[in-house]
Amino acid sequence: MSSYHALSEAEAVEYARGIPNLFTPGSELTSREIGDGNLNLVFHITEPSTGKSVILKQALPYAKVVGESWPLTLDRARIESEALMIQESLCPDLVPHVFVYDKELALTGMEDLSDHIIMRRGLMEGNRYPLFAGHIGRFLAHTMFFTSDLGMNQQEKKLRVKQFINPELCKITEELIFDDPYRDADTNDIPPAIRDAVEALWNDNELKLEVAILRTGFLTKAQALLHGDLHTGSIFIKPDSTKVIDPEFAYYGPIGFDIGAVFANLLLNFAAQEGWSKDAASREDYRSYLLGTIREVWETFEREFRSLWNEHGTDRMFQTPGYQDWYMQQVLRDTFGYTGSKTVRRVHGLAQVADINKLEDAAAKERAQRIALQIGTGLIKYHRQANSIDELLDIAVKAVR
Amino acid sequence: MSSYHALSEAEAVEYARGIPNLFTPGSELTSREIGDGNLNLVFHITEPSTGKSVILKQALPYAKVVGESWPLTLDRARIESEALMIQESLCPDLVPHVFVYDKELALTGMEDLSDHIIMRRGLMEGNRYPLFAGHIGRFLAHTMFFTSDLGMNQQEKKLRVKQFINPELCKITEELIFDDPYRDADTNDIPPAIRDAVEALWNDNELKLEVAILRTGFLTKAQALLHGDLHTGSIFIKPDSTKVIDPEFAYYGPIGFDIGAVFANLLLNFAAQEGWSKDAASREDYRSYLLGTIREVWETFEREFRSLWNEHGTDRMFQTPGYQDWYMQQVLRDTFGYTGSKTVRRVHGLAQVADINKLEDAAAKERAQRIALQIGTGLIKYHRQANSIDELLDIAVKAVR
Repeated sequence: MSSYHALSEAEAVEYARGIPNLFTPGSELTSREIGDGNLNLVFHITEPSTGKSVILKQALPYAKVVGESWPLTLDRARIESEALMIQESLCPDLVPHVFVYDKELALTGMEDLSDHIIMRRGLMEGNRYPLFAGHIGRFLAHTMFFTSDLGMNQQEKKLRVKQFINPELCKITEELIFDDPYRDADTNDIPPAIRDAVEALWNDNELKLEVAILRTGFLTKAQALLHGDLHTGSIFIKPDSTKVIDPEFAYYGPIGFDIGAVFANLLLNFAAQEGWSKDAASREDYRSYLLGTIREVWETFEREFRSLWNEHGTDRMFQTPGYQDWYMQQVLRDTFGYTGSKTVRRVHGLAQVADINKLEDAAAKERAQRIALQIGTGLIKYHRQANSIDELLDIAVKAVR
Repeated sequence: MSSYHALSEAEAVEYARGIPNLFTPGSELTSREIGDGNLNLVFHITEPSTGKSVILKQALPYAKVVGESWPLTLDRARIESEALMIQESLCPDLVPHVFVYDKELALTGMEDLSDHIIMRRGLMEGNRYPLFAGHIGRFLAHTMFFTSDLGMNQQEKKLRVKQFINPELCKITEELIFDDPYRDADTNDIPPAIRDAVEALWNDNELKLEVAILRTGFLTKAQALLHGDLHTGSIFIKPDSTKVIDPEFAYYGPIGFDIGAVFANLLLNFAAQEGWSKDAASREDYRSYLLGTIREVWETFEREFRSLWNEHGTDRMFQTPGYQDWYMQQVLRDTFGYTGSKTVRRVHGLAQVADINKLEDAAAKERAQRIALQIGTGLIKYHRQANSIDELLDIAVKAVR
């Protein structure tokens, strides 16, 4: 089984049996392929006699999106497993444990999280997760600080940058987030009802200038090891647990990009409450919960990041008075900009979100899309002036007033 | 000869003889070791019967500075030769031709430039090089543009970033330029006469904040493939020719760092005219020549960079109105800051410059050092507000008024 080929279910079972100290020798194992088949095979392998289980995720050498298929590097399995292992070393409770990474097969054996649900679904069901903000704020602070020049040996960090050079997956982001939504690209999937608003973006040079500046940061700012795709579909959740999965887009980039991914997907759900909430009072209430979560994520991130810095920062120059405040302000400004970029692309670009697209009422869906565009473009245009998280919340509140 | 060892002169001759299509088979060759022995062996090998010659540069596995010796990666020979070959493909007339790179021996065989002199010496002798500004401005524009996200495939650029990860040599810069001069470090060599001015830097938090910000750019801003050490000792010159040598510090960093290296070394000579010029009139005249050179380098760089962008820039988002102006302003601001950083470190840090240190008159030397510190700190403090090259020249002029 050592040279690459897509595993059959029987092979997956045999492979899982070989993982040391996991299953009972000789016991019966069952396998179910639960991936969507577009990018990866995902085998859920269980031992009914004990309830033990494991996930085997195998990268496929292509990506399938809307019927098209293009080749995609198997190296993303290495990136994903190596990023998970670094994240686990920093936040062991917030990512799935990796049992094994097999380079030849582009396969990772990891902890089964079937008792969690995808957070996007949880939000669409109107659930609240009071521990989430603390969890994800800590995840962001610890994974960013300890992979940056602030929190690790600066020469080893350069080797990490090299380890996580990720051209093919970065290209997807560069095009789908920072280019295609701002022109009449074939990849877009423009809802006819809001075509006027989308076309207005294409002619808004002030907006496109800010997007080009944010794109520059994505291309050049090797600040910390990012997850790279931290939307609510990359988060498994239950009331007492949060698990960040799927870091195959990991690379060294601007810290605000990951924070922005979290905020954008909370704001997309915020916009989608046009349709999900059953009345105005519950809509306002759930929206307050979402904005409160954003505030708490930022405050947790900032508090923990500064505290790690004060406790573990060894770089002399970075202890200069005023520098930490300057740094946090840059991260906040990037966060505004990337939150906006990641909100806009989900409205009319490729790969939209169920929060909005599953709305059945056409008028509510259109309102949600327009709200999301207003929030996204507002954040992008304002990002270089931002000074406080309150301003981000204000931009969201004004869009639904 | 395939495993690494420092070559003897006889071995160097034999090696040179093996370079295809260079020397006449069987002819007599002579060798002279002309390196300073601190970092590299440099063999100058000539064929007296034809006048043909070649330089063999072999990296030593250590660096010797002021009596101390520390290990230093042989990989710098690869970095240097690969950077030279990229630069040659973009500006064939402005770098030595590389005949051969031998990974095992950490050895590069390159064009002999003995008919040129080191530019630092040329300036100390009061020479003028009217073609220099055009040459180096073009070198900066072409090597930066075509290795950046603006002028090359953005996925291939990421592989270039990986190819030029250069931790050990970057560390030297991070410490000697962006840290040690701003504290009482052992590596400093503080001229007793200006100790008051040096100690004032150590207590200047406004200055140190700006240095910390510039250091952040050096650590994280992967904009283009830099030479990394572009002072006037890395430039061979004669009236009709300019050759940039020794890019062993090459890595992906901020464009303004290389431009700043050129400007800083012109400004150090500008300061040193306190002692070199024979009278006030010739001093003013040579200083005008130096400042005119700085202006012309910037103007050539900016004009050529914008012109390459307009002609060869394929990225759609980077054609957004206003973006090119924003980008050039960032490069200008970085240039101010790095010019300042590279000026200050040469006054009292490790590795000072002959322009100042060879001055025999103690009073003139002290004035030169104070002028250099004033210019350097002025540029560092002003860098985030800079809008035109005139402001840089003003800061220099004010320091000698």
